[in-house]
Amino acid sequence: MHAIVIREPGGPEVLEWTEVPDPEPAPGEVLLDVAASAVNRADVMQRIGVYDPPPGASPYPGLEVSGRIAALGEGVTGWRVGDEVCALLSGGGYAERVAVPAEQLLPVPDGVGLVEAAGLPEVVCTVWSNVFTLAGLEAGETFLVHGGGSGIGTMAIQLAKAHGARVLCTVGSAEKAAACRELGADAAINYREEDFVESGPYDVVLDNMGAKYLDRNVRSLATGGRLMVIGLQGGTRAELDLNALLRKRAAVHATSLRARPADEKAAIVASVREHVWPLLAAGKVRPVIDRTLPMAEAALAHRVLEDSGHIGKILLSV
Amino acid sequence: MHAIVIREPGGPEVLEWTEVPDPEPAPGEVLLDVAASAVNRADVMQRIGVYDPPPGASPYPGLEVSGRIAALGEGVTGWRVGDEVCALLSGGGYAERVAVPAEQLLPVPDGVGLVEAAGLPEVVCTVWSNVFTLAGLEAGETFLVHGGGSGIGTMAIQLAKAHGARVLCTVGSAEKAAACRELGADAAINYREEDFVESGPYDVVLDNMGAKYLDRNVRSLATGGRLMVIGLQGGTRAELDLNALLRKRAAVHATSLRARPADEKAAIVASVREHVWPLLAAGKVRPVIDRTLPMAEAALAHRVLEDSGHIGKILLSV
Repeated sequence: MHAIVIREPGGPEVLEWTEVPDPEPAPGEVLLDVAASAVNRADVMQRIGVYDPPPGASPYPGLEVSGRIAALGEGVTGWRVGDEVCALLSGGGYAERVAVPAEQLLPVPDGVGLVEAAGLPEVVCTVWSNVFTLAGLEAGETFLVHGGGSGIGTMAIQLAKAHGARVLCTVGSAEKAAACRELGADAAINYREEDFVESGPYDVVLDNMGAKYLDRNVRSLATGGRLMVIGLQGGTRAELDLNALLRKRAAVHATSLRARPADEKAAIVASVREHVWPLLAAGKVRPVIDRTLPMAEAALAHRVLEDSGHIGKILLSV
Repeated sequence: MHAIVIREPGGPEVLEWTEVPDPEPAPGEVLLDVAASAVNRADVMQRIGVYDPPPGASPYPGLEVSGRIAALGEGVTGWRVGDEVCALLSGGGYAERVAVPAEQLLPVPDGVGLVEAAGLPEVVCTVWSNVFTLAGLEAGETFLVHGGGSGIGTMAIQLAKAHGARVLCTVGSAEKAAACRELGADAAINYREEDFVESGPYDVVLDNMGAKYLDRNVRSLATGGRLMVIGLQGGTRAELDLNALLRKRAAVHATSLRARPADEKAAIVASVREHVWPLLAAGKVRPVIDRTLPMAEAALAHRVLEDSGHIGKILLSV
């Protein structure tokens, strides 16, 4: 098969569509014929060389795919060859075929196309596990997501709104602000013009900036607030005001999905299927796709992501 | 009645046993004839002038008492005049009488003396709400409490051990180390001689030092670890390594009990009565009392606390 290989750590040009050996499904895994994968920030970090795949994962980038089941590994039940699915991966999605634990599969939701579905697993599992399972966002609470126009942002806005929260986001352009409001955001704060702290307090903040926003995120939390850090695009170390945190009885939680053990991923996927899939099937939540490029053009897809002009997910189709 | 009045912010000598007006129980409150109160770090901070009572609370120090019910306010049910109780307060414990919401009362546990019981509410509610309700310490997990010889420490060791955790603590002397081991600690780390990070990782850390220990606490956490900060004796601001936190999928939570609204205190007290009171009645957990001084000698009690040579609670009896 072909896969995108990271020739060496570096810029987008190191991504090469190359002939590689086919994967084999281990017991409990299925082999997928990939229809599409999607680009995540983690792929860029892996390409640069600062985010190695966890032990045992594929060396190729790609944390999510959609496709058809080509073969079942030993002991897999509940799925059949030919089923249209999408899947949460630990890597290897930028390829024509990928092997994945059956417990990380989800059916393509009713009303969502096979290619589009590639943009769902990573963002839905990340938003659901952080904002709802860990932070416990409740109806009537106020929620802020940074990067409202990103894949994570566009899904977080819709899911939080569907659960009855008041939803705000930060964005970098008027075009993104309009898109976020159209998705249900009650307000979109252009971070080039306004300080998001002034529109708080927030019960839950979903953050991808890390150090750069830590102090302002903490200042913007409500009593009992929960800051969920899922990205470190603004650096890793910053001063924490523990007194502010204590007076608010607030928490800072930092997580990543990729490094979780298989049983935790399976539990998240099962919870997502139960709680989010019905919202997709009902059309209350939808994947937001910026564009779809051929997988051999992964380098271009990375450039688009790094320019941050996109709204929603960038897909790579086989 | 008499109460300890803070004449002005300052050293222990500003605490004066003075004639003051009797409190009146509001609807939903009871009036207690105080048998004893207990000294907490928060009382010292209030005395110094850096920790004002929350709005509506008594101006006198004292976050817990034991005593007998002298009168029932309007609408109080389930308690009778003469009942021997202990209570979680928002202040006012250093006095002959105090009014307290009925939902913050607990019966004196079987096998515990009336005076001794004054040392239970604050530490039990603090440890229970943080280590068990918020951090969710589970059997088989590893738990570290700083200041193992303190009132909080001696209770945290016993409760964590009773719930099947592996328990470590830090202490400042060999005498305290021996006392903590006798209470059930699997190891007591003398912080003057050893770095507690080396004995980790810990699933839950209960911390009273704040800034001074933040970096080492985070480094010592296990994957999925929870750092619970309940005191800031080592300062309020320190650098947080978000990358370390993210790689461990760990959380930093800072809380205080005193400022919580009445309904949250009531919920904590109810949970403590259900889960901890049976352990006290069965003799599996006991209050550890360093000494009992007359309440008029509150200044001496504060000096003893500030010298940090005590093990367990320092009580003030009427």
